Amino acid sequence: MLTVYGDNRSGNCLKVKWLLDLSRIDYQWIETDVTSGVTRSAGFLALNPAGQTPTVVLDDGRPLAQSNALLLYFGEGGPFIPGDPYDRARMMEWLFWEQYSHEPYIAVVRFQRAIAGWRADRIEPRLIERGYVALGRMEQALAGRNWLVGETPTLADLSLVAYTRVAPEGDFDLTAYPNVVAWVARAEAAFGIS
Amino acid sequence: MLTVYGDNRSGNCLKVKWLLDLSRIDYQWIETDVTSGVTRSAGFLALNPAGQTPTVVLDDGRPLAQSNALLLYFGEGGPFIPGDPYDRARMMEWLFWEQYSHEPYIAVVRFQRAIAGWRADRIEPRLIERGYVALGRMEQALAGRNWLVGETPTLADLSLVAYTRVAPEGDFDLTAYPNVVAWVARAEAAFGIS
Repeated sequence: MLTVYGDNRSGNCLKVKWLLDLSRIDYQWIETDVTSGVTRSAGFLALNPAGQTPTVVLDDGRPLAQSNALLLYFGEGGPFIPGDPYDRARMMEWLFWEQYSHEPYIAVVRFQRAIAGWRADRIEPRLIERGYVALGRMEQALAGRNWLVGETPTLADLSLVAYTRVAPEGDFDLTAYPNVVAWVARAEAAFGIS
Repeated sequence: MLTVYGDNRSGNCLKVKWLLDLSRIDYQWIETDVTSGVTRSAGFLALNPAGQTPTVVLDDGRPLAQSNALLLYFGEGGPFIPGDPYDRARMMEWLFWEQYSHEPYIAVVRFQRAIAGWRADRIEPRLIERGYVALGRMEQALAGRNWLVGETPTLADLSLVAYTRVAPEGDFDLTAYPNVVAWVARAEAAFGIS
């Protein structure tokens, strides 16, 4: 059986869990606390030399990592990857944007505040500022649209909702982002996220 | 005809150029100096609200961005995307790793030193440290291997060689990374990069 090493507070891990659940793929979840040092142990590094969660071990023993690469692997042939080449490319654009321009700010600040328990004044202002830039980019993209790409939910929505929905835990105020707030609720309903 | 807005000092832009050249796809290159402010102009932001290069406009006028998403779009059906689902997933793993764990350190430090002209003592030590972590990860992955995934070059090699080959411009010393140095030469030869 498939094994997922994941931290259930991590959006990167949860997005993979949600897709497996939606796809009715059986897996064993091994809760892996990223703050415990276990991801730096020799055993874990043998599975994923990058020392990151989620890390998946396929039923034949081969490892695979990087949350969005896992979404693409398990999502192949399913309803969340557009068949149209341009729409698929736009979905990919959002997946790479998520890891480069969203996760390093929204997820990192939320981790520092809500998981590591840092005081607000210890957070680097640049991270907060860039988090709001990312939210502004999404607010604009979602104007008049239900989903980031095309007319139905895709992996772009699944990937981006993971940390956007918990942005308030990082003290991000979503009041000025009504399109984002409505889209989060829509995505949670579509993907069965509670 | 395809239009590419790119800065010819940017690995993210050059990797797309190399793939288009290798694929014998015609395009018009519009040199776009990322330090000039042009990527923040209203005209550019209408094409790519993220304000980043490369940005491509397809021959039907539709825009597309994110270097690795562009590699996947133009590489579809070609020799640099493995047919095997696991190998393809590993390639995706490297593409996301490149944007999250390599580019923000290797490319950023090289930009600050070689393009923005910053003095060495102005560079954030954490960026240098993480750049070497990325190089170490590649050195280990390339032990006894010619390519990052499988037995032939893939988009993972094309994407990662773009900034790895110019890491010394960011004062990264590759002496302790002989596998990386040999792989850079191998990739440059395979992809016709000079």
